Amino acid sequence: MKKGVFITIEGPEGAGKTTIMEMLMEKLKLEGYPAISTREPGGIEIAEKIRHVILDKENKAMDARTEALLYAAARRQHLVEKVLPAIESGYIVICDRFIDSSLAYQGYARGLGIDEIFAINQFAIEEMMPDATLYFDIDPAIGLDRINRDNGREVNRLDLEGIDFHHKVREGYHLLCKRFPNRIVKIDASQSVEAVFESAVDELFRVIQ
Amino acid sequence: MKKGVFITIEGPEGAGKTTIMEMLMEKLKLEGYPAISTREPGGIEIAEKIRHVILDKENKAMDARTEALLYAAARRQHLVEKVLPAIESGYIVICDRFIDSSLAYQGYARGLGIDEIFAINQFAIEEMMPDATLYFDIDPAIGLDRINRDNGREVNRLDLEGIDFHHKVREGYHLLCKRFPNRIVKIDASQSVEAVFESAVDELFRVIQ
Repeated sequence: MKKGVFITIEGPEGAGKTTIMEMLMEKLKLEGYPAISTREPGGIEIAEKIRHVILDKENKAMDARTEALLYAAARRQHLVEKVLPAIESGYIVICDRFIDSSLAYQGYARGLGIDEIFAINQFAIEEMMPDATLYFDIDPAIGLDRINRDNGREVNRLDLEGIDFHHKVREGYHLLCKRFPNRIVKIDASQSVEAVFESAVDELFRVIQ
Repeated sequence: MKKGVFITIEGPEGAGKTTIMEMLMEKLKLEGYPAISTREPGGIEIAEKIRHVILDKENKAMDARTEALLYAAARRQHLVEKVLPAIESGYIVICDRFIDSSLAYQGYARGLGIDEIFAINQFAIEEMMPDATLYFDIDPAIGLDRINRDNGREVNRLDLEGIDFHHKVREGYHLLCKRFPNRIVKIDASQSVEAVFESAVDELFRVIQ
């Protein structure tokens, strides 16, 4: 393996992404693979500043397309400054959310159009599509229930959307699974942590070996 | 005239855009047309914040594509919050620089590609292309000389680019004139202010009447 591998993790909050990512990182380290995990904006100063504009509660007049362009801009900078250098150095990079989140949430659930969001994100990432994407699929009612039971976790803006929105997001992810069958693997996240981890490990090692 | 008209002014610094815009506004007011002039970010708070990220001198690691996406985001917000409401209310809106600046400077002169910059800007502006664009054409050497003699004017980042860059920008604008012959009118800005103004007025009244 000369260059690294780029893996992304997708799915709603409450699907167990964070837990499984930590377990995957542990596994990779035990087996001696160089690996890092990250998520946008990933401590990249310019991306953090862009994120600050997106999330600033004063910016109530923010248009959905402005927001989509800002997400793409932050994604670009995080990719260029953090993900690409690590991949060039031979690391396996596991990124919590990437282009598919924009496609499912903004393109499909918010109705801006998957193709349109794909176009601006292609400009942002050029040829750097993930080598593989693990999509954690779960009924939104179960995911939201898990979030509500996790008192330590901070509730974010998207958690507060109604259940219909989260069903739309899931529909969006299912469309993406059909569109990118070679890249995206759907994992049933309603299973036990052990079973989900096993599916994720199988897929991860299929890609990196 | 039920709805307003959207006019953009393009060309390098030193072409006399600001002077002619002021004269056009004066003329429109004298003739009783409702008109406003603006330029991005145009006092729109979210667009100002985005502009601040773009121009912050600390952001040396800013990638050219990140910058292009941020310009498109600021453009979107200025359009939605300021330009569109004015046009809906029947105003003639004259905007100093718009999509063609991104196409000429970033798409062509910086080499990101006119088509690629056009795609992200189409996402930003949807169907809101200008009704007409007045492009003030001038040899970069003459334009830069005018800037240097204007001691009161603040020199910006682009003024400091070499003459080759400014020649590329002009080439870019010339390509756009060929691509959008019905929308863009090329005005020879090396003429006297009176002659340039006369050409601009002719074109303006052709569009709004």
